[in-house]
Amino acid sequence: MEAVARIASLPHWRLAHQDSINVIRRDIPTPDFLSALELAQRIGVIAEELGHHPQLTIGWGCVTVTNWTHTIRGLSEADFQLAARIDLLLA
Amino acid sequence: MEAVARIASLPHWRLAHQDSINVIRRDIPTPDFLSALELAQRIGVIAEELGHHPQLTIGWGCVTVTNWTHTIRGLSEADFQLAARIDLLLA
Repeated sequence: MEAVARIASLPHWRLAHQDSINVIRRDIPTPDFLSALELAQRIGVIAEELGHHPQLTIGWGCVTVTNWTHTIRGLSEADFQLAARIDLLLA
Repeated sequence: MEAVARIASLPHWRLAHQDSINVIRRDIPTPDFLSALELAQRIGVIAEELGHHPQLTIGWGCVTVTNWTHTIRGLSEADFQLAARIDLLLA
């Protein structure tokens, strides 16, 4: 899979490297800490449904979502599908 | 405040650096993703009560809590108080 081509359809996401692994990432601003936690819960519901889980970093006023596929230590189609579903949630 | 001395009373926590900032950090294993989200919620309640918010990184089977004080870009007493309260929650 060509990640650069695949991410072209996901303008809110960027390619990044984390611990030498290719990941995709989106920062989502929120009004405060509790709303960041609430958003994390809603993303969690999607992740459970898809059976594919992101890393969620929650701070005061921001959730950062980072997707990669642990089994291959890189990006798979599931990461982009999860990203698209999260975008739909936020649309 | 001497962070090295202060953290001696918090054996589950370690000093770390993040974006050139001194932070304290604890990794908390959980059974799965949803239980990590649930733990994040419970930590969020404490954070709201104290008016001091950690960074929470949620993955499948782990919550990593990272405390620092944004206004001073470093560690303050509030970070250690928050750590102690989280330890109490998990005790």
